[in-house]
This record gives sequence, structure tokens and C-alpha cells, in this order.
Amino acid sequence: MHPAEPVSDLPRASAPSSRRVVIVGGVAGGASCAARLRRLDESCEIVVLDRGPYVSFANCGLPYYVGNVITDEVSLLVASAQMFRDRFNITVHTETEALSVDRDARSLRVRDLRSGQVREEHYDALVLAPGAAPIRPALAGVDAPGVFAVRSIPDTRLIRAWIDQRAVKRAVVVGGGFIGLEMVENLRHRGLEVTVLEKLGQLMPPLDAEMAVWVADHLREKGVTLCLGDGLAAIEAQSGGALVVVAESGARIETDLVILAIGVRPETTLARQAGLTIGPRGGIVVDPRMCTGDPNIYAVGDAVEVHDVLTGQETVLPLAGPANRQGRIAAQAIAGRPAAFRGVQATAVVGVVGMTVASTGASEKGLVRAGVKNFAKVYLHPGHHAGYYPGARAIHLKLLFSVPDGRVLGAQAVGFEGVEKRIDVVATAIQFGATVDDLADAELCYAPQYGAAKDPVNIAGMIAQNVLSGDMVLAPWDGVSDTDALLVDVREPEEYAAGHLPRAINVPLSTMRERYAELPREREVWLCCGVGQRAYYATRFLAQKGYRARNLSGGYTTYGSLKRAGLIGSE
Amino acid sequence: MHPAEPVSDLPRASAPSSRRVVIVGGVAGGASCAARLRRLDESCEIVVLDRGPYVSFANCGLPYYVGNVITDEVSLLVASAQMFRDRFNITVHTETEALSVDRDARSLRVRDLRSGQVREEHYDALVLAPGAAPIRPALAGVDAPGVFAVRSIPDTRLIRAWIDQRAVKRAVVVGGGFIGLEMVENLRHRGLEVTVLEKLGQLMPPLDAEMAVWVADHLREKGVTLCLGDGLAAIEAQSGGALVVVAESGARIETDLVILAIGVRPETTLARQAGLTIGPRGGIVVDPRMCTGDPNIYAVGDAVEVHDVLTGQETVLPLAGPANRQGRIAAQAIAGRPAAFRGVQATAVVGVVGMTVASTGASEKGLVRAGVKNFAKVYLHPGHHAGYYPGARAIHLKLLFSVPDGRVLGAQAVGFEGVEKRIDVVATAIQFGATVDDLADAELCYAPQYGAAKDPVNIAGMIAQNVLSGDMVLAPWDGVSDTDALLVDVREPEEYAAGHLPRAINVPLSTMRERYAELPREREVWLCCGVGQRAYYATRFLAQKGYRARNLSGGYTTYGSLKRAGLIGSE
Repeated sequence: MHPAEPVSDLPRASAPSSRRVVIVGGVAGGASCAARLRRLDESCEIVVLDRGPYVSFANCGLPYYVGNVITDEVSLLVASAQMFRDRFNITVHTETEALSVDRDARSLRVRDLRSGQVREEHYDALVLAPGAAPIRPALAGVDAPGVFAVRSIPDTRLIRAWIDQRAVKRAVVVGGGFIGLEMVENLRHRGLEVTVLEKLGQLMPPLDAEMAVWVADHLREKGVTLCLGDGLAAIEAQSGGALVVVAESGARIETDLVILAIGVRPETTLARQAGLTIGPRGGIVVDPRMCTGDPNIYAVGDAVEVHDVLTGQETVLPLAGPANRQGRIAAQAIAGRPAAFRGVQATAVVGVVGMTVASTGASEKGLVRAGVKNFAKVYLHPGHHAGYYPGARAIHLKLLFSVPDGRVLGAQAVGFEGVEKRIDVVATAIQFGATVDDLADAELCYAPQYGAAKDPVNIAGMIAQNVLSGDMVLAPWDGVSDTDALLVDVREPEEYAAGHLPRAINVPLSTMRERYAELPREREVWLCCGVGQRAYYATRFLAQKGYRARNLSGGYTTYGSLKRAGLIGSE
Repeated sequence: MHPAEPVSDLPRASAPSSRRVVIVGGVAGGASCAARLRRLDESCEIVVLDRGPYVSFANCGLPYYVGNVITDEVSLLVASAQMFRDRFNITVHTETEALSVDRDARSLRVRDLRSGQVREEHYDALVLAPGAAPIRPALAGVDAPGVFAVRSIPDTRLIRAWIDQRAVKRAVVVGGGFIGLEMVENLRHRGLEVTVLEKLGQLMPPLDAEMAVWVADHLREKGVTLCLGDGLAAIEAQSGGALVVVAESGARIETDLVILAIGVRPETTLARQAGLTIGPRGGIVVDPRMCTGDPNIYAVGDAVEVHDVLTGQETVLPLAGPANRQGRIAAQAIAGRPAAFRGVQATAVVGVVGMTVASTGASEKGLVRAGVKNFAKVYLHPGHHAGYYPGARAIHLKLLFSVPDGRVLGAQAVGFEGVEKRIDVVATAIQFGATVDDLADAELCYAPQYGAAKDPVNIAGMIAQNVLSGDMVLAPWDGVSDTDALLVDVREPEEYAAGHLPRAINVPLSTMRERYAELPREREVWLCCGVGQRAYYATRFLAQKGYRARNLSGGYTTYGSLKRAGLIGSE
């Protein structure tokens, strides 16, 4: 090995500064934009401002820092101001608030929060990456000590201190969405008794209710108290330091800690002041280059409205992945390179007390909201790997697709292992406008501990193919309680005896060829089994025998989830 | 709940048999074909023949049954002859060997292996799904007691008995491919000392050598003895029951058990006898409908040649996923429905003593073999999830893509968690002819325990984009030992001191802006860091300063793997 050559200590070269780019907000989108821009353009001056004490911290890690899963605060700091300077020659001003924009003068008025001093920052290009702020409803007591939101490292530091110093035993999480459930996970990890108060009748609002019910079941089983369909009315501070969360129903929940996780709202104060266009969803309007109406001002991240590629509508989607990509695209645009954000498809995952919940694309309610009518859905409950290999656990999967062209519109999955893998595959397929045929044809990894020769994604595609081809006509689940059709459970008698649809008779698939003539030809026959497979076989048989046979997708397992979600009435 | 309606006991309806379909081979492709065909056509007669005692068993589970991971033989039986009869009205004849085909008479001559009786089976359509047989080289001793292949349940039963009854302590696995490594995994699980003898200089022949080296490192660390680059010469049976495996090098390995996992060969005896076309790779030639040259004869599964969508060449690929899909397609074709097999992309995974190895698409050597010249490759070593969340472990990833159009050609990944997920995503992208831009843009699941805001797949795409755009010019790794370029390690001095490329000098990225003028402008500068990221930053900086800077993809980590794989010489 040769010795390292000696290097002399030459003076620093100064780059001629051609342009000055100022970025407001140094997390995710802002930080990505700054770093990418420097890689593309060594000559420009890049200044990043952030209101908080840190830039480029891992805000998606904050709940886990509260939960002591992440024990070292330093590990949340993805990049420091020092690193931005040393690696990228980027100037970072923390604890610096942007006050107003003078677009004609291309000047930003900022305040140093430590000194209180106000100054002007000239820009040639301005990037707004202010993020989104937790919604704090104007209700009595929301500012009481012990009531917290989770947005910044200082926030989480306060929550940790509150838990440790007061030996907190009980917590109420207001809001059952992503952040709310991540807080549930982490407060349980700290050993707290946790109650979730959620105004909607379900957890995980992006999911359809019958999919979210699997999460609720699991959390209840793990000892979490759920108050669904009940909103926050007020918070009362008791003498002695306890808090009482008063629900809209009048229910009173005594607790030691309240986490507000109701949702977030795009930070648009600066953009509004600057006269930039704010869209109907409350976010800054940008073009595919992430440029606002002002050619010198870009905006990225949680504060902007983005195009939903599934529904064709504008939306706000406060997620780190799209924010990072937008930052990169704004940098490309500023550097004069081609760049276009392709829109979002809302791929997301959350882990909660051992369970994984993931989705991509549109939900059924999202399609309905967007006025989409020609779609169908299938349910399935395959094992996460081959059934013959020990330890397979069900993934509850819902696939939505366009009729009659079969374009994949969205998927939701809930389970314990391999859940987000399947959603990532469907997400990738959606990116290319895949049809259900493509899902059926996907060539995915298979060894028994990882998947199956027909992966759950393949099976979802094959079931949907059968629907589109007319080989398997679906029965509408919401008609099951009052249909005139004959309901037939095709499982074995002992399975039927353990629980079945009201009014369903039992004709096991294994006897169907002997007994089908018992079935009435004048009525529709709706077939049900455990998860939909045997009923599909029976559907095919009966259809070929001239019956008007339909399959109840996902079988008795789906029935249970629909019923627990309140989507099918009792009789 | 309504009571179940009473059903009367009507006589079985007899279906008019219009056509007779005979399927030779009842596992994977054959079984899928039979079941699918019945669902499409209730009226035809379906007969499945298998030489073995079972149909539709989980042959991918066999190694795990040897390993006692799967403890119950019954769980390997996906479907029994009884189930085929009851559910599908399919006749199964096990222990029945197909002897010859009379294509003019559309008749198959078969022998009942129990009675020895020979009979004719008439067919309207014949499906050949005979699979592939383990290669048993014609060497001395390969038939000695204690030498086994792993193809059938009886095979594995014999191996289990051999291990249990002889209290076997040592095993030699001949062949380091998929089956070989699965046997290593399982024999280790049984507590045996395991030696692998592999004729090639690497494990996992489908992978490129520098990727396979990670597997070899891991196995050695786990106490497995590897003899690479050494083939089997003979096996000697010792008195006392021990065996000696004699390698081509002359090495003698004493052992109690030998597993032959050299590879498999398509079973084409019947097809050859019938005069069907056999392709250059030794498999039965079929069209996209899985039809052979004879319009009444189809062939599916491990015995057929398939079209590799990446290289455009014909190949044999003995994997269960494609076999199942081919069975389904043959059924569609027989039922007169549209059907076309899209070819294969060779997606595969293997788990070995805690490590996961997965790949999809073409390998570098596969591209070279196919005469493809315009491609590039990048290496990366990202954590399997966000670095700030505890427990992130590296995934070693190689991405191959077409130049200049950026089409993704293949990916290989080795690591411990989240490995096959990334390969499944790339596999799905390849299915759609994706470019590296698409990988960069993929919107995948992110929460800190599952991934990163920039997922490893995104990062792979972004790195490749930088290569294609010319923003990051790659240095050729195979030139590193004799290049005239200046090698510069941009890590911090303590990292450099712990190990670096021969002849590399150290100019940390953090000091590059002060010190770059030290570097010679007349020579190329090849930059290296730990995994390639900091060197990329330095490459961008220096390129903008007018240097001919190149990045050594994957950094010192890739260097180590190339060196251990023997692809970079010592100095």
C-alpha cells in the first residue's frame, strides 16, 4: 500500500456568488432542496432559515423519542447547521422567523428570535418550506399544562419531562390518525394507560371503516381504550395536577397527559401575506416545478397542495417522502433543469403495538367523495407467507379498481408481517397505471418464509380479474341483511356451526356437486365461506350450471369487519 | 338470526363430458392448471397423473421439513387427491408414470407403478408438467447410502431418517445455489456442521460475485465451511458408515451425509419421445399460450423454456411462481380464452441463516453473456430503515440499468431485513419497463421502523439518475488498482486511518472547499468514501470547479466486497 501523499494547506477558494437562494424551513423539503441545489450549483449562495432551534431533524421520529424507543435526542438530528456549512457551504440561521415578503424588492423580512432583531434577506429565488402546524382547536383548556402537540424536538422534550417528573400513568390521545396512533404505540411502550378520543366513528381516517376496524380490535385487545365517534369538548385542569378530558358526548376522562393529534394545517401565513395563491384545500398552489404564481418563489412540503394522481383532485398530504422529492424538484427548477412533480398517491404506513397498517392510492370513501362511480372492490385475507411454513398470519387486504378497464385505484392492508411490502408493490404498480392483470402477473420474491407462489398481490389481481371477466359476480355486502337472494355458506358443517351469516344455509363445497339441485333456480344464490375462496369455487360451479350465483368477497371474515364497523346492520 | 333452511337430498347431477384433458405432473404448474381449468370449464373431464405418491405438495418447503422447521409432513400437502375430487371433480392417479405419447391417436401410455399395469389414457388436450430433476453427476459414489437429493417428500423423509437414526453430525452440501443454501440453513438448524462445495468461485450463481460474497462472509461467520471454486470428484463410502467427499482439488472431506444440490435439469424424456421441440437450453419449447408445436399438447413449469424479458433470450427458470402462472395460462388456452405468458424476469429470494438474498432481472454477468453492452451499475448500502430509528442494518444493493435510456435491467440485494421488499418493488417496476427516474419517483411506505423518506429504492434511482445525467461520472472499479488517477478518500481522518484504498490520499469532504486547490487538475480524481455518498458530494463540487472527478460507486464497502470476491487484484 502506498503512503498517502502529503497535501499542502492552501487558502480557501472563494466562489463567485451569482444568485442568492433563501429557503424558509430547514426540515425535509427545505433541507432536501438546499442540499440538492448545492450539488447542482456550486456558485449560488444558499441560506436556510428555520424558526426552531434545529434544521433537518427527523420529525417522523418524534413519537419514538417520546416512547424512549429512540433514547438519544442527537440521533434525531439528521444534519446540523455545522454539517450544512462544512459539507455544502450552506448558511443556516436557526431561531429565525420569516415575517413578510416584499415580492417586488425580492426581499424577506426576518426576525432573529434570540435577539429580537429584524433584518432583510434579499433573494433571487425564495423557497417556502414552512410545513404544517398541528391543529389546536379553540376549546377551553387546550393550553393547560399537560396538554401537548408533537411537532418539534422541544415539544417532545416537554412531553418526556412531563411523563418522567410526574410519574404519569394515564394519557388521552385526541385523534386516531397517523400521529395519534404512533403516540399510542409509544405511550404504551412507556407503560401508560392510553385512551384514544376520535371524532370519527373509526381510527385511521385515510382507511375505509371496515379496514380500520382491524386496528381498533387489535388496540382494544392490547388494553387501549377507544372512544370513537366522540370529539373533544374541553379540557379541565384539576387541582393536584390531573386533567379531565371532556368529550362532546359529555363523557369525562381523567388523565395525567393529553396529546393533541387532531391533524395538521398547512402553514400559509407568510404565503398569504405575500399574496400567493392558496388553494381550496388550504395549501399553497404550485405548478409541477413547485413554483408558485411568482416565478421567483417556490414552495414545497406539507404547506403545498398537490395533485392526487388517483382522484385527479388537489389535496394536502403531510408526508416526508413527497416533501423530500418536492424539495429536490424545486432545486432542479431553480438550477434551470427539467423537473416535474408527478403528484401523489398517498402511500403511507403506521406501526401500532405490533400491527402494521398501510395504504396507497384512493380509499373507497375517497373515490365516492371524488365522484368516481365505476369501480369495484375485493377483499382477501391471505397469509403473509406460505401457509405450510409455520407462523403465517393473515393480511387483511382491500383492493379497489376501475371498471371495466381494471386500473388499480388503491389498496389498504392491515396485519402483522409483510403488510407494507404488499402495499409498496401495489404503490409501484399504481405509479405505472397498472391494471389488475398486471398485479396477477407480477413476478415477486417467493420462498416459504417470505411469500407464496401466488403472492397476496397476485391473488388480489386474480380475484379482481375474475370480477372483471364476469367469472365471479360479486354480491354487494351492504345488501346482505335484506336481500331476497338465498345465502349459502359453503364451508364444512363444523365451521358453519361456529358462526355464519344470518339466514345462510349450509351446503359445503365438498358436497356441492351432489347437492346443487337443491338450490332454487329462480333466486340469486349468494355464496359465502371463510375468506372467499371456496365460495368462489362454488360460484364458478353454480354459474356454469345456470345459477345466478354471486360471491360475497372476503367471506365471513369480511362480514365480521363490516359488522364491527357498523356498515352492516343487525337483524 | 334465521334458522338454516332444510335441504333435501337430491341425486348427483351428471355433467356431459365434452373433452378430456390429461395433465402429467400434479405439482405447482400441473395442479394450478387443473384447478383453474375446472373453474373455467365444468363440462370437461380432467385427469391428473403423477409419478410420485402425492400431488400438489409444497416442494419449496422440503428443505424446511428436513430442518424440522416444518415438523408435520401433512402440512406440506397443499391439496390431496381427495380434495381434487371433492372440490373440483378432478381425477388424480398418483404413482402413475407417463411412458409415451401417441400424438396421432391422442393417447398417452401410462404405467401404474403399484400394479405394474400399463394402460392408455385418451386425451383431447395434454398438459406436460413434469418439472425438473436434480442433476446427479455420473461420478463414483453418488449413489452411495447417505447421498441424497431433495426433490420429493419421500426424499426428505429418507434424509430425516438418516439424520435421526445415525445421529448425524456433519454434512456436505454440493452446490451453493438456492436449494443448496436452503439446505445449509436447515442442516444448521438441525445443529449439523456443514461444508459447502461449490464448483464456481462464488455462492449463489444467479448473483454477481461481489454481491454473493456478502453471503459467503455471513455463512463463514456462522460457522459454515465453504469450499468455493472446487467441484465434486467422487464420494467414497467408508467402513463404519462415514462418507468422504473427494473434491476436484483432491481435498477430502469426511462427512456423514451428502446433499446433492448441483442444479436441476428439465424433465423432457416424454416430450422428446413425443417428438416435441426441445430448445437450446434443454427445455420444452412453447408459445406464449404454453402450447407446444402440437396444438393439442401444452407444457408448463420447470420443464419448459421461457422468454427472459430482460435479455430477450430463452432460458429455463425452475421457480414456483412462474410455474403456477403458466399452469393458469395453459388452462385459459385450453378453455379457449385469451392468455399469454409475459415471460420471466427471474425474481427470486433465499433466506440463509438469518440473511436474505434476493434478485430480479438480469445480473451483470447475465447481461455480458447476452451481449448487452450499454449498461451501467451502481452500488449502495443503505440502512433497511431510517438510521435514527434503532436497529437499522445495511442492505447491500446493486442496480443495473440501460444507458442512455435508464431502463432498469436488474437488481440484487443482500441483507437482513427489508431485502426482498426492495427487490419486489424493483421487480414490479421492471414489469412496466421502468426507468431509474421511476425508481427515484416511487412513493413508498415510510415510517421510521419500515423505511426512509428516501427509500433505498428511491436512492438507487437517484444515484443512477446522477450517473445518466453526467452529474456523477463513475470510476470503473476494475481500474482502481492500476489507474493513473489520483485516488482521494473524502472521509474523516479516523475513518481513513481504519482502512482505505491503496494509494488513496485523504482529503475529508468537510475540508474539501478549503483544500481542493491541492488536487492536480491534470489528472483524473477518483473519489471514495464509506458507501459513496460523501464522495458524490465531493464529485459534484470538484466537477463544478473544473476537475475531472469520478465517484467510486458504493465506496470502501463495495471495494471490500469486490476484493473479497477476487474481482480486484492485490497490489
